[in-house]
Amino acid sequence: MMEKQDYFQYYMAGNVCFGCGWKNPEGLQIESYWEGELGVCIWQPQEKYHGKAQVLNGGILATLVDCHCMGTAMADAYRREGRPLGSAPHYRYLTGSLNVRYRLPTPTTGPITLRARVTEASGRKTRLFCEVFAGGQMTAESEVLAIQTTEIHPDPDAAG
Amino acid sequence: MMEKQDYFQYYMAGNVCFGCGWKNPEGLQIESYWEGELGVCIWQPQEKYHGKAQVLNGGILATLVDCHCMGTAMADAYRREGRPLGSAPHYRYLTGSLNVRYRLPTPTTGPITLRARVTEASGRKTRLFCEVFAGGQMTAESEVLAIQTTEIHPDPDAAG
Repeated sequence: MMEKQDYFQYYMAGNVCFGCGWKNPEGLQIESYWEGELGVCIWQPQEKYHGKAQVLNGGILATLVDCHCMGTAMADAYRREGRPLGSAPHYRYLTGSLNVRYRLPTPTTGPITLRARVTEASGRKTRLFCEVFAGGQMTAESEVLAIQTTEIHPDPDAAG
Repeated sequence: MMEKQDYFQYYMAGNVCFGCGWKNPEGLQIESYWEGELGVCIWQPQEKYHGKAQVLNGGILATLVDCHCMGTAMADAYRREGRPLGSAPHYRYLTGSLNVRYRLPTPTTGPITLRARVTEASGRKTRLFCEVFAGGQMTAESEVLAIQTTEIHPDPDAAG
């Protein structure tokens, strides 16, 4: 059973991001967590995010990949430094680049799963590879460059 | 003065796409048109699409680029064939791949402009280069691969 504290986004205080901000009631509100070396996200599509009927919009798929990879890059940085998520200094990541190859239509009839792994981490830059699965098939794959920033003044009341 | 009929999306009958479907009341509802050889889109951000406060979410930016380039690829195909938008056969485009480089934060305090040009069109594949501008600066650039499909049964009542 997952707890809120297991998700990377719990530690993004005051986050209003459309993709991953728990403070954005109109956003996608993704939840990312570790399964071993893989950052995993399971997300249930809503009808308004269709591209065509029953198929996920490609830009929303890119949003899921982007935000899930930023969260995984953040969690990886804490893990490499041997300190818990939420401890200072507070890292966040911004997207440097995003490359998505769409292999198959991504059906919206069931949950969508993302699995990301860090392929390189050096200085402020983290590179990730992310696969998207739906209906038992890999429908898209992506390379993402994440760039570390330090949040100087996180809102201590905003977590959760 | 632009008319509805000037926009590429007017000719996407029954389109429920989150990014470009005029039939999706909860979507971004972008409008794309020609300025000479450039496909242009001007879009006004809404607060819920923030990444952080006052900055556009990177995935929503990717959605704008994606849908604007699919529309521009479609319009380009009709233009190359010397026939008007809306004439049969009805083409649509799907995203093959999307590469976005984020150069600067994209402010959401004013309109966002996209300018796309076709760099290669061969068979069913169209490649495009698209720049994103906000506040007078180029904030992102992108290469997109669009793949032509033929809509066999467009809904004749759905245009507009």
